[in-house]
Amino acid sequence: MKPIGPIPPEFAAQSGMLTIAGRSAADWAVEAGTPLFVYDTAIVAARVASFRAAFPAVDLHYAIKANPLPALLQFLAPLVDGLDVASAGELARACVVKRADAISFAGPGKRDAELADAIIVGATINLESEGEAGRALAIAARLGRTPRLAVRVNPDVELRGSGMRMGGRASPFGVDADRAAALVRSLIAAGADWRGFHVYAGSQALNAQAVAEMQAATLVLAARLAEEAGASPPLVNLGGGFGVPYFAGDTPLDIASVGAALSERLDDRPAVLRDTRFAIELGRWLVAEAGVYLTRVVDRKDSMGETFVIVDGGLNHQLAASGNFGTVVRRNYPAAVAHAMGAPAAMTASVVGPLCTPLDRLGDRIALPTVNPGDLIAIFLAGAYGASASPTAFLGHPPAAERVAP
Amino acid sequence: MKPIGPIPPEFAAQSGMLTIAGRSAADWAVEAGTPLFVYDTAIVAARVASFRAAFPAVDLHYAIKANPLPALLQFLAPLVDGLDVASAGELARACVVKRADAISFAGPGKRDAELADAIIVGATINLESEGEAGRALAIAARLGRTPRLAVRVNPDVELRGSGMRMGGRASPFGVDADRAAALVRSLIAAGADWRGFHVYAGSQALNAQAVAEMQAATLVLAARLAEEAGASPPLVNLGGGFGVPYFAGDTPLDIASVGAALSERLDDRPAVLRDTRFAIELGRWLVAEAGVYLTRVVDRKDSMGETFVIVDGGLNHQLAASGNFGTVVRRNYPAAVAHAMGAPAAMTASVVGPLCTPLDRLGDRIALPTVNPGDLIAIFLAGAYGASASPTAFLGHPPAAERVAP
Repeated sequence: MKPIGPIPPEFAAQSGMLTIAGRSAADWAVEAGTPLFVYDTAIVAARVASFRAAFPAVDLHYAIKANPLPALLQFLAPLVDGLDVASAGELARACVVKRADAISFAGPGKRDAELADAIIVGATINLESEGEAGRALAIAARLGRTPRLAVRVNPDVELRGSGMRMGGRASPFGVDADRAAALVRSLIAAGADWRGFHVYAGSQALNAQAVAEMQAATLVLAARLAEEAGASPPLVNLGGGFGVPYFAGDTPLDIASVGAALSERLDDRPAVLRDTRFAIELGRWLVAEAGVYLTRVVDRKDSMGETFVIVDGGLNHQLAASGNFGTVVRRNYPAAVAHAMGAPAAMTASVVGPLCTPLDRLGDRIALPTVNPGDLIAIFLAGAYGASASPTAFLGHPPAAERVAP
Repeated sequence: MKPIGPIPPEFAAQSGMLTIAGRSAADWAVEAGTPLFVYDTAIVAARVASFRAAFPAVDLHYAIKANPLPALLQFLAPLVDGLDVASAGELARACVVKRADAISFAGPGKRDAELADAIIVGATINLESEGEAGRALAIAARLGRTPRLAVRVNPDVELRGSGMRMGGRASPFGVDADRAAALVRSLIAAGADWRGFHVYAGSQALNAQAVAEMQAATLVLAARLAEEAGASPPLVNLGGGFGVPYFAGDTPLDIASVGAALSERLDDRPAVLRDTRFAIELGRWLVAEAGVYLTRVVDRKDSMGETFVIVDGGLNHQLAASGNFGTVVRRNYPAAVAHAMGAPAAMTASVVGPLCTPLDRLGDRIALPTVNPGDLIAIFLAGAYGASASPTAFLGHPPAAERVAP
């Protein structure tokens, strides 16, 4: 038997039939069919409220790569101060729900057409290299527009203990810190509307002290670069990196303590940042716990002493939950039998999808109440990097349904 | 500097501009746009011919999960004896190009509607469990049809040295060998058209001796089960497992030696298999080397002493090449600068895609001729598990173009 991760608090205390946004999992499955993602916007709103309480003086951006579903964007956009996008496709979705001056576009390898789109609508481009800066300026000149340009900095610090480190090392993201000020000066000299700095040092961190240290180091870095550039940044995007507890032993990030530490640092910030706004960019942390993936049991079988519960959903919709996306060691996401929340375990089984590959495993030897064909299995933490980050076409099954509730 | 895998023989000897199916990579990129998959059917046909030479008495099936592109299926279907599908979606594609009695449907978790589709069109269902057998028989009875049913067996042997082992252990695939004969007897008693056995013990094997041993063991197993069942199987699908050399140090599977060994075993096969046909089911081996992924360089940048070549294609089209699908340690697929085939290396660079994640790396510190924005990078071995097995929607970039040539 292998452990599962913690079921999010909004669902963990339920007993009997799982309800999502006040409606039973069984009803959701009948209405939409399975497999199915349900996103509970009340949980998203609760995360936004927690953030606001912990970071009263900091802007909140949503990184829409975590979940770009239009109905979810429509809900979230009014609750956040900015949307961060990473492609022209995401930019187009963001423009439907947010003013362009609250949209920023990061990502290496932005094509000329993408830069042009951003300049035309007036979104801020987080420049990833001097080469990209040159292209953006040339395109803006050709279009007769003043581009909104920020400089993404590859920091000389990394986020300790993050699931994915993106700082303190050679990187495709951003301009090395020692060249950033020169780039800022050249942008200002070229007449661009310089919007500030973007620093992203890691993601999926659960250690409050590590996040606080990273934010403090980012403040120091931004101040140093501003001094070097001789210009105060209108905005410093401190990145994100707030993790959610996916696996056994994970505990939630203590954002109150992160917020308190940042607040102190902001109170004491250097003069060059006195009029600067600060933003934190969150994707996963806002939406992951709001999503539940519901999949129906098609078969149950025994093989060489082990039990397999075979469901109609799999890695084609939930690649990360299968352990095949950015993880070295496969571990179990939280899961439950939907009609038996809180019931004691009666069997150990692996939950596998319908794909003809051993990679398609949503639960590896987990303890479950008795489960039979026709039952629904819930996989939690399905709100981020699920439907949009999985190989939907693989093996020719239909896409999962998605519902935003209420 | 890290090594890359071997460029397939059809491309390795080229110099100057890469040509695919007689057309320059530059022309392909202009015509279709980038990123782009090109599949050279002449290479597929050459693999089919090699197979026929090595296995004159064995049927060849194509497992369309490797690449289900309709134009490729149209080309391949007349060259093979059967198509193996793994979902109702794949079944629908297969039916367009092949008679249903040459189509077989494997995969755990077939839904009732999928079983009904297969029964209605007359495809063979490779049953994965007793439960699925019961459902298939009930659906056939309701439809008034005689179902074509084979039994997939979870063998008590595994394929040594395969990239993905699927035998010799508890498995969601197939019925344990010790229960298979009983299932066959029950199918025959129920009036089904029993088509034989399907055994799949692993995939991506490059060791000829291991494959030959696995096939020999499968023959022994099939004979034993046939004796136990008291019935001769019309067909034994020996599975596949033929690998292709993706990585440095990989060498091609010696299929002539596999074929010679199998031929000997077939000559000496037990009487109960005297009238049995045998099939080998190949996906990757037939199409992987025929595919080239062409992606254009958008930016080139230096960071902390390393060079990054940033291209317009990435893991959203080529998840496996990024090392994020079924591999524990990331290794480099073969790659080249398209206009400088055969040219000596002039730099070491990482080739990364446009996605805003460190996972999006197509080449990790590889040696390349000088490469600049606008150049094309070719990633080889792109014919299998590429476009259809990647998270296309992730980060909102457009899908890759696909071309079947000539």
